[in-house]
Amino acid sequence: MAAVDIGATKTLVAVVPSPLEGWPDDVHVRRLPTDPEPGRLAEEVAAAIRELSDGARVVRVGIGTPGPLDAARGVIVHSPNQGWRDVPLAELVAGATGAPVLLDDDANVGALGEATLGAGQGRDPIVYLTLSTGVGGGIVIGGRILRGANGMAGEVGHLVVRADGPACSCGGRGHVEAYVGGACLADRGRAAWAAGRLAVGRPAPPDAAGVLALAAGDDAVAAGLVDEAVEALAVALATLVATIDPARVVVGGALGLAHPELVRQAAALARARTLSIGGSERLVVPAALGDSAVLAGAAVLASTHT
Amino acid sequence: MAAVDIGATKTLVAVVPSPLEGWPDDVHVRRLPTDPEPGRLAEEVAAAIRELSDGARVVRVGIGTPGPLDAARGVIVHSPNQGWRDVPLAELVAGATGAPVLLDDDANVGALGEATLGAGQGRDPIVYLTLSTGVGGGIVIGGRILRGANGMAGEVGHLVVRADGPACSCGGRGHVEAYVGGACLADRGRAAWAAGRLAVGRPAPPDAAGVLALAAGDDAVAAGLVDEAVEALAVALATLVATIDPARVVVGGALGLAHPELVRQAAALARARTLSIGGSERLVVPAALGDSAVLAGAAVLASTHT
Repeated sequence: MAAVDIGATKTLVAVVPSPLEGWPDDVHVRRLPTDPEPGRLAEEVAAAIRELSDGARVVRVGIGTPGPLDAARGVIVHSPNQGWRDVPLAELVAGATGAPVLLDDDANVGALGEATLGAGQGRDPIVYLTLSTGVGGGIVIGGRILRGANGMAGEVGHLVVRADGPACSCGGRGHVEAYVGGACLADRGRAAWAAGRLAVGRPAPPDAAGVLALAAGDDAVAAGLVDEAVEALAVALATLVATIDPARVVVGGALGLAHPELVRQAAALARARTLSIGGSERLVVPAALGDSAVLAGAAVLASTHT
Repeated sequence: MAAVDIGATKTLVAVVPSPLEGWPDDVHVRRLPTDPEPGRLAEEVAAAIRELSDGARVVRVGIGTPGPLDAARGVIVHSPNQGWRDVPLAELVAGATGAPVLLDDDANVGALGEATLGAGQGRDPIVYLTLSTGVGGGIVIGGRILRGANGMAGEVGHLVVRADGPACSCGGRGHVEAYVGGACLADRGRAAWAAGRLAVGRPAPPDAAGVLALAAGDDAVAAGLVDEAVEALAVALATLVATIDPARVVVGGALGLAHPELVRQAAALARARTLSIGGSERLVVPAALGDSAVLAGAAVLASTHT
């Protein structure tokens, strides 16, 4: 079984045994730069798989990569980073490797990884939240990714917190990502800096980490931005409890893992507001697989497809 | 197969063929008052089933009834209307009928009915919203009720619209039900009447229908309450799209069916705010089974259980 995590700049490839009993700590992972030409990328992925499997043919290949994409057809609808439109990536990789390919959105695949082999193991349903430059999400019910009618299920970053809130990367307003996403938090910090309200006298505006550091240092304006981020995250968590009633919400992503205090505060706020309290002390847990969540999920995708 | 809808005051019983090809328009339904003594109610339900099946033994019995309940154990945890606590209703009905009993929350069972035999037929996933005295909900994915880790999935009435909003029947604040539920809308009308702002000079405060009628007659205060109800319903719809991505949101309940204009306005607002537009023109549809949704769902529950 081959697992592939195709990111904006780097691609990870691993070959793992089937059935998969757990995510092997010592798995050999090949890292390549993500080739912007899809046909060449498919050949490079196939070469890495051949090398890792010693030339033995792999049964199936699972791929996680940023969307929007059409999982059923294995087509990348649009990849802003690569400039791709309607790229039949699954077909290209299948052609290069000679093995069937399953492909899904990286947040969905990360959710499948954490649900099956990480912090959600043995629990159901599982919601995975990835807090990073943006806010992604995935929902796993009964061991399967919930895709929804249009492949948009689990887009928790685009829940509306305030209809008249700040702009979101998707063009909407007041979404969770507009408050919690690293890029949007940095934008809000930049606006406050430009208005002379934050990091006054510094030559450059703070980035997301800078806003968080200023808030921790008792800057009232930065603390206000961080409070709004916590509030938005609490809305997302309360919403998930009232709709999906997850056994665990697994929180990953660079920002989520680096700032567990944000997640803890949001979980406490959400707990005070939700109808059901059942199991909520352990409701929100940190991701266990770190950078390997998508790779592990790609392996599960390849293993469990029927 | 027997289907039973146990409501606060009346109980409906039907016997239907298996496999069930659709909900038969001409099915014979027995109506009984809901006996407040659970053992007697079970005997009365069993007698109605024997009468409807001409004494032939039924294979399985499905029951929908208000929660909170434990579907796995078939126990009513608490029924405020009946004053029941920890009543093993499934076991009582199984004892009286000699047939295995499946039992679930009436909103979940109504969702299964509409998803399988009503307005959601042939689509997946389906969300069912029932707007009545309260606001209930149920989610059906792949033909099965989503129950969640604590049986609280689909509690869409308890999504938070505003953390500092009006009181909800559950003790929370600013939930969808606090704005849209008939009882809460009537409470808000009563408060405005008591403050001399609404229906001035009338001897009694308006009920929910009265508030809606005043709003339609251009009363600004009533229109404000109704606008907030539409806004809350829009938040619920937008939230469902960003989490579940349903193929259809089926709206039933007395208030939902009597006021399609509320639902239409909320759907238009939600559409303007959600990330995905796919299929949204037909996203929100009225329930097709009317008062029979729970009964039909109970029949499906009894038919499809494995």
